[in-house]
Amino acid sequence: MSRLLRIAAAQSGPIQKAEPRQAVVARLCTMLGKAADEGADLVVFTELALTTFFPRYYEEDRDEMDLWFERDMPNAATEPLFRLARERSVGFYLGYGELTPDGQHFNTSIIVDKSGTLVGKYRKVHLPGHDEFDPEREFQHLEKRYFLPGDLGFPVWRTMGGVMGMCICNDRRWPETFRVMGLQGVELVMLGYNTPSVNSQKPDEAIEKRTFHNRLALQAGAYQNATFVVGVAKAGDEDGFHLFGESCIVNPDGEIIAMAETEADEVVMAEIDLDDCNFGKSTMFDFARHRRIEHYGRITSQTGAEPPAE
Amino acid sequence: MSRLLRIAAAQSGPIQKAEPRQAVVARLCTMLGKAADEGADLVVFTELALTTFFPRYYEEDRDEMDLWFERDMPNAATEPLFRLARERSVGFYLGYGELTPDGQHFNTSIIVDKSGTLVGKYRKVHLPGHDEFDPEREFQHLEKRYFLPGDLGFPVWRTMGGVMGMCICNDRRWPETFRVMGLQGVELVMLGYNTPSVNSQKPDEAIEKRTFHNRLALQAGAYQNATFVVGVAKAGDEDGFHLFGESCIVNPDGEIIAMAETEADEVVMAEIDLDDCNFGKSTMFDFARHRRIEHYGRITSQTGAEPPAE
Repeated sequence: MSRLLRIAAAQSGPIQKAEPRQAVVARLCTMLGKAADEGADLVVFTELALTTFFPRYYEEDRDEMDLWFERDMPNAATEPLFRLARERSVGFYLGYGELTPDGQHFNTSIIVDKSGTLVGKYRKVHLPGHDEFDPEREFQHLEKRYFLPGDLGFPVWRTMGGVMGMCICNDRRWPETFRVMGLQGVELVMLGYNTPSVNSQKPDEAIEKRTFHNRLALQAGAYQNATFVVGVAKAGDEDGFHLFGESCIVNPDGEIIAMAETEADEVVMAEIDLDDCNFGKSTMFDFARHRRIEHYGRITSQTGAEPPAE
Repeated sequence: MSRLLRIAAAQSGPIQKAEPRQAVVARLCTMLGKAADEGADLVVFTELALTTFFPRYYEEDRDEMDLWFERDMPNAATEPLFRLARERSVGFYLGYGELTPDGQHFNTSIIVDKSGTLVGKYRKVHLPGHDEFDPEREFQHLEKRYFLPGDLGFPVWRTMGGVMGMCICNDRRWPETFRVMGLQGVELVMLGYNTPSVNSQKPDEAIEKRTFHNRLALQAGAYQNATFVVGVAKAGDEDGFHLFGESCIVNPDGEIIAMAETEADEVVMAEIDLDDCNFGKSTMFDFARHRRIEHYGRITSQTGAEPPAE
C-alpha cells in the first residue's frame, strides 16, 4: 500500500517590522501558488508567519503589542490565502499570534484542509524566553511575556489521508511534544519556527551549533515516533536580528530528505508516502510491546529536576 | 568552577561463544589498565560484557541458557577486574546477565566506584526483540525470552563527583529513559550496547542508517537533558554475527567529542567537565521553568499508540 502526499515546506524570508500584513500574505500566496503548480497537497508555513518576530521587542504596556495579533482567522488580511488554497485545492499549516475574544494571547497554528476548512488549532505549549526585561541578554526573547502557554495539549487530526499533528518552534526541543503525538499515531508533524542565529545568553555560540540542535530535535522526534516531520523557518535578517533557515522535511527514519538552501522565501517540495511510518511503528517503536510506563512516573509527576542530595 | 573527570569508553571487540569468562575479564583488565595509565577516573564497559551476545541463540529450554548469567557480582571470574580497579583507583560501569537467588534473569549493569564499592545497579527496562522463535527473522533477538524487564526504574547516584545514571542498549532509543534521569539532574549517562549491523526484520537496511540511529539517540538524549553520555559497543564479528562499533562520548550540547575507530577492544578517552552541564540545565532545559506536565499525561497513562478513529 501507499498513501502518497506531496508536501511543501514554505520558508519565509525576513519580515521587517514595517511590512504590512497584506504584503506578507501576498508573499505566502506566491509560495502557495508555486507549490500548487508542483502538485502540492499540503503547504507548511512558519510560526508567526504574518509578522516580524515581535517577541524580541520589549513593551512595558502589553496592550501596545496587540497590533501583532489576529482577532479572527481568517480575517480580511488572510482571506486571500484561504481563498487561493481553496481554489488550488491545497491544504496548509499557518502560524500566527492569536488574540481571543476574552483577551487571551497565544502563539497559535492551524491546519486548513484542501476545501479551505479549518480542521485543527494548536497553541504553543513550550514558550521559551522570559517574562520581564532582561538586561543580561544580548537581545530580548519575551514569549513568556506576550503569550500564555497553550491550553489545547497536543491533539492530532485525521485529515488529508493521514494522522496530522502540529507544534511550534521551541516545542521541537522537548521529546514530550513528539511522544504525546506519537501516542496518538501521528504520521506527519508540522511546525514553524523563528530561531535567532545568536544565543541571547551565550553570544559566542556558533550558528552551526544552533542549526545542529534544530536538526537533532527534528530528526530524533521523527525517528523515535516513526513519523514524518516538516520544520519551516522564518529566516534572514529582520531589522538587524538574524534568524537561521534550514527548513526541512524529515522521514520516519529521522533522515532529512529535503532542505532549504536560502534565507529567503523558498518552497521545498517532497513526495512522501505516509505508509513509510508503518515499519517503525510496528517494529522498534511498537509502543504497546516495548514501552514500560511504570518507570516513567517522574515525567508527569514532577516539573523541575530534583537531583539527589549532595 | 569545574569538575574535571577523565573518562574512558572501553569498547569490546567480539567475544566468541567459546571464549571463557576468564579470558574476557583479562581483556577488560588490559583496557582498564590502559585507561588508568592515561589517568582515567572512570571506565565504561559494554552491555553483557562477559559473554557473546547470547540472545541471538534460541533455546527451547531456558534453563540451558543459565550458563550465560552471573549469580554473584563480583564472582570468581570477575574478581580480578574489581581488584585491579581498586588498585588503580578507577571506577567502572559493567554490563552482564544477572541471575538472582530466586531465579530471575535480568540484563544488568553496575557502577563500581574508585574504592571498588558497588554503588549502583540498573536492570534494562526496554527489552527489544521477541519471546518465541520467529521464523520471519534473518536471525533471532530473544531478549524478551531470556530477561525480565528491569524492575529498578532509572535511578541516579551521586558518586565520583557527579550525578551518574545508567541505561543499556535499546533503552537509548527511548527519550523517556534519558528524561527520567534528566529529572534527577543526571550529568553523565553510561550505557553499553550490542547492536547487530543487520536489521533482522529488514535485511536491506544499510549499516549507515543503523549507526546513524545510534548516534541520533545518544546525541538527542544528551542535548535534551544537558548531560554527558558515554555509549560503549561490543563490536565486530561474533561467530558470524556482526555488531557495529562507534563507541562514543557525547557532551551536553549533543556533540560527539570522541569515537572509537575500530571494531576491536579499544579505549577511547576524554577529559570532561561536569560543570559543562550547568548552562543547558539553567537555560533552555531549565525544566522547572519550561516543562508543562499538564499536557504530558498520555506518556504515563497509556502504553501503546491510540490513533484517532478512521
